[in-house]
Amino acid sequence: MTFEFDTDTAVERAGEDRFAARLTDRWNTPAGPNGGYVLAVVARALLETVPKPHPISLTGHFLLPPAPGDVEIATELIRTGHRHATARATLSQGGKEVVTALGTFADLAEAKGRDLILEEPPALPAPEEAIDPLGTLDQAMMPPIAGRMDYRVGELPGFALGEPSGRPEFVSWIRFSDGREPDPVALIFLPDGMVPTVFEIGEIVSSTVEMTVHVRAVPAEGWLLMRVRTRFVIGGYHEEDVELWDSSGSLVAQARQLAMLAG
Amino acid sequence: MTFEFDTDTAVERAGEDRFAARLTDRWNTPAGPNGGYVLAVVARALLETVPKPHPISLTGHFLLPPAPGDVEIATELIRTGHRHATARATLSQGGKEVVTALGTFADLAEAKGRDLILEEPPALPAPEEAIDPLGTLDQAMMPPIAGRMDYRVGELPGFALGEPSGRPEFVSWIRFSDGREPDPVALIFLPDGMVPTVFEIGEIVSSTVEMTVHVRAVPAEGWLLMRVRTRFVIGGYHEEDVELWDSSGSLVAQARQLAMLAG
Repeated sequence: MTFEFDTDTAVERAGEDRFAARLTDRWNTPAGPNGGYVLAVVARALLETVPKPHPISLTGHFLLPPAPGDVEIATELIRTGHRHATARATLSQGGKEVVTALGTFADLAEAKGRDLILEEPPALPAPEEAIDPLGTLDQAMMPPIAGRMDYRVGELPGFALGEPSGRPEFVSWIRFSDGREPDPVALIFLPDGMVPTVFEIGEIVSSTVEMTVHVRAVPAEGWLLMRVRTRFVIGGYHEEDVELWDSSGSLVAQARQLAMLAG
Repeated sequence: MTFEFDTDTAVERAGEDRFAARLTDRWNTPAGPNGGYVLAVVARALLETVPKPHPISLTGHFLLPPAPGDVEIATELIRTGHRHATARATLSQGGKEVVTALGTFADLAEAKGRDLILEEPPALPAPEEAIDPLGTLDQAMMPPIAGRMDYRVGELPGFALGEPSGRPEFVSWIRFSDGREPDPVALIFLPDGMVPTVFEIGEIVSSTVEMTVHVRAVPAEGWLLMRVRTRFVIGGYHEEDVELWDSSGSLVAQARQLAMLAG
């Protein structure tokens, strides 16, 4: 079976350190292709460039809004060491640079050092007992990306009820709706896979300036538990901090983005 | 008056998009020049390259341990838009790439959008009533960087008493000891200006893989309040999450680094 995420993030080599890809509209938010989706396409090109299998830290800066359609990605391997390889990439569309990225890659199977977990995942009913928030919303109002994803929440978010809670934070189970299991490349996309936290403070447009994802472990199969929260809105900019735990309860990714409210 | 931080982060233009600098040993940790200090040198070169005055998001990947001495920095302006400019840089020493960085710059004075603060700074006695932790430590054991900085804490950290607390978290006032006031470039360095959190879990060596700093506001003069904490040590890797508040109580920076324990 070919999954949507794999089809839509596929890259084709177009030269030495050059790749072609096609952004589909299936991951569109109301503002166009989801930024995490575009960064996952960049990650695919970087993975063809570096001799390590997993992105452990990947930063993308979002220069211009992408549109569905053809893109090209230029990559450059900066350094390969024993444990890490570092590379940069820029994704362009119509000759304009849209996303530029910098990442370090490793083999997470070789990360055998100390483990010490000081924070548990947030409490949420098991997915089978939790609420499908999309089931209650007007399907005609939903952007295409909502059709790619399943969510399960403990209670409906305030914005969905027309009453933003004032607390820009969400906790939700999340997975691909076509059954595609999570892996490190999916963990580049997923931190951007929820609606903006600022919906809960009455905002409706937020655009990512920069997002950094740390992939901390290869996820187990099944649902992921995601928490995303904003604590500081300053001068129209805000952070979104994300943690993702896998179905075994292991933290598998942390991410932070700096985003800007409209206006 | 010329301050140590300004002298030691100065860059000299050596060509188009090329700069020369000299890392001093004054910011040395036991493992060599502090990573945040080196990233601040990179920030200075980037600020000569972009038409915006403040780094708002800067990511550095640490490829090789730097040593005191001459370095060169190559920069590249990627895009200048109305609000943001994005550029990359690589700092090399002896022909080897040591730190590579990617950042977005803006004029924070033009960030006039919404403010909403959902988390207060941690409670700590005023600096005049707090404890100088360096006063109690053996000066001969201290690396040069400790001579550049003043700290004030509510209680002595466990590791300094030979009894790591098991909680990899510090809260401290912090400032330059020569009276240099904080500014956005200093905020690139300062998130790395405390001893590693993992000292509190019995570790003594941690090296930065990647650090991202979000400068959220131009800081007021005076002490900064810093909180740094680690929640997840996984396979020998750990994050350090930093918040910095200025003397007026405003959040002025957030940072996260991915670091690796020795071994």
